[in-house]
Amino acid sequence: MNIHDNLETPALLLDQNVLERNLARMRLHLRRLGVSLRPHVKTAKSIDVVRRALEGQPGGITVSTLKEAEYFLAQGIRDILYAVGIAPGKLAHMVNLIRRGADLTVILDNVATVQAVADAARAAGVVIPALIELDVDGRRSGVQPASPLLIEVGRVLAANPSVALRGVMTHAGESYNCRSAQALREMAERERAGSVWAAQRLREAELPAPVISVGSTPTALFAESLDGVTEVRAGVYMFQDLVMAGIGVCATEDIALSVLVSVIGHQADRGWIITDGGWMALSRDRGTSSQKIDQGYGIVRTVTGEAPCDDLIVISTNQEHGVIAQRAGGPLDVTHYPIGTLLRVLPNHACATAAQHQSYHVVAGTRPGIIDTWTRISGW
Amino acid sequence: MNIHDNLETPALLLDQNVLERNLARMRLHLRRLGVSLRPHVKTAKSIDVVRRALEGQPGGITVSTLKEAEYFLAQGIRDILYAVGIAPGKLAHMVNLIRRGADLTVILDNVATVQAVADAARAAGVVIPALIELDVDGRRSGVQPASPLLIEVGRVLAANPSVALRGVMTHAGESYNCRSAQALREMAERERAGSVWAAQRLREAELPAPVISVGSTPTALFAESLDGVTEVRAGVYMFQDLVMAGIGVCATEDIALSVLVSVIGHQADRGWIITDGGWMALSRDRGTSSQKIDQGYGIVRTVTGEAPCDDLIVISTNQEHGVIAQRAGGPLDVTHYPIGTLLRVLPNHACATAAQHQSYHVVAGTRPGIIDTWTRISGW
Repeated sequence: MNIHDNLETPALLLDQNVLERNLARMRLHLRRLGVSLRPHVKTAKSIDVVRRALEGQPGGITVSTLKEAEYFLAQGIRDILYAVGIAPGKLAHMVNLIRRGADLTVILDNVATVQAVADAARAAGVVIPALIELDVDGRRSGVQPASPLLIEVGRVLAANPSVALRGVMTHAGESYNCRSAQALREMAERERAGSVWAAQRLREAELPAPVISVGSTPTALFAESLDGVTEVRAGVYMFQDLVMAGIGVCATEDIALSVLVSVIGHQADRGWIITDGGWMALSRDRGTSSQKIDQGYGIVRTVTGEAPCDDLIVISTNQEHGVIAQRAGGPLDVTHYPIGTLLRVLPNHACATAAQHQSYHVVAGTRPGIIDTWTRISGW
Repeated sequence: MNIHDNLETPALLLDQNVLERNLARMRLHLRRLGVSLRPHVKTAKSIDVVRRALEGQPGGITVSTLKEAEYFLAQGIRDILYAVGIAPGKLAHMVNLIRRGADLTVILDNVATVQAVADAARAAGVVIPALIELDVDGRRSGVQPASPLLIEVGRVLAANPSVALRGVMTHAGESYNCRSAQALREMAERERAGSVWAAQRLREAELPAPVISVGSTPTALFAESLDGVTEVRAGVYMFQDLVMAGIGVCATEDIALSVLVSVIGHQADRGWIITDGGWMALSRDRGTSSQKIDQGYGIVRTVTGEAPCDDLIVISTNQEHGVIAQRAGGPLDVTHYPIGTLLRVLPNHACATAAQHQSYHVVAGTRPGIIDTWTRISGW
């Protein structure tokens, strides 16, 4: 059955049924823990997706670029956390967004940035809210919760009336490398406890810390308590992907995103099916290569989303070519996949794969056809 | 010195001086070998770059998507080789391009595709030219030069008046895995000899083969003879990259492309510089990971393109964060790179990195400032 025959391949498909199920799961889980959600829009970069994610939430979002802030502000979303330490060269742009109505919060982890933000805000006659970024997993940016630098940054913020200290934030990205439910629960607790402790230290130093913002999809979904936390950030949970499935955060059936590809040739002797879905469409992300099961460039499904009888993955890619073969390298009767056959490829990493495309072609389970097209943004 | 302070990071820089030098090198080399160039536009996807690459050439181009064909046709380029086996679902689009004036050639390697192309062309009342794709390196698509299938595909093409057999084409992508100049020369000769032999077999079967089209940047630049070949295709040579440098095709000084990033933080204890250049800006391509020298996510240069005193590479990335450190992991005085410092990152793979951006910010050596902005296309 060819349900998508007016769509030129490669094309990005989004199963709305699976999306809604993923959104409901996170919503229910966080409601149970008594914490609100500030969805991270860096995965979806689409108002159609984010509007659904915001149902039942306060309405604030998290962005990874000022381009995202621009786009979502134009869509009427004002409460925006820019969750990447701000470069001084972006402050003029940021002030411009604030003047246009954005309630934009920055994050920072050093005194030099506090001073750059304070100077820009003072010159513009605005007050910029800030969270201090914490490092709870030794992976990226942020001050250690125990560090004297935490209080130092807090004091410099408090001394500058053009910036407003609002609290702390952290992202336990190391959760992507957890290999068991227990490890995920522990990482979620480490994220929570480190943030709550840092906020406590600020308060003891008579500095304000009303906001405690944490999150990553794995820690959000595996947290057993979020006591003290005021908001959770997560983005990948909307679509899920093979990396998330590999660490036990979801099943492959929970992956809402896939790339529709066409069979364009075979190498019958080698058991290869050649498609027009190369790394440009799938992304170069090989996030499962360090996991227990390496999914190559993605798992293959039929055009309607079912698993084919063969255990097929994309074993290699060129820019606009994908090579599909049996996972175990065994023989394959390629005549089961004639020229023109449409297949879906489930992505390793939803953020990276979606970024290669300009729109989502929306499907709903096995219901025939594309029911909608949602645009997404890219760039900076 | 901060020569780019009006540019928000991350941003893609293209050094026009290096570009012109790379174009001249290929032009001179192929002139010496007596072969013309059909530049592959999949790397640059920009008329400003491709117009320069076409200087002194017949004017035809190679594309990897019909979107590229659309764009370059709109820019006045009609002679277009679509160098990915065509999916039946793209034939209507292709016919549309032909009707709008494109002299579009397809490639194919199987009888089913010949029939699909012939049917579509007949229904539309056009004649579509075709090259038979050859497999000379066991890597991807194509019929073996020695295979009976070559003659079979040729005969089916000849029997259909709505398609016109024009010859053969191949791409020795395996050249990217060569590890010595000698291996590259041998791969170039294998590409040449296999193609010439396949054309010879077609002619002996009284089938036409006026076109023998070969190419990849490594084989094009290392070929010592291209006797019998009528045209060379290459794209990466325009920009070069660390993968090409790693196999000895160019020096790092020949890399025209870089990503401008800003320092946004430090982890002084670990010797880390944190920047706003993550995998979204650099791409997920880790092509050097299998080479003798793993360049991480790229080599770091100063804002004006010089090597800093420290031997810095991007050791890891998140979506919008890059972590820069000493290649050998040694200590680094991060105060040499204060918040706001601009740095350039040379890419592993020019095609993948350029694809993450919407325009080239053109620089010329150490001349201050951005001298031009060239847009590029993406998608399908």
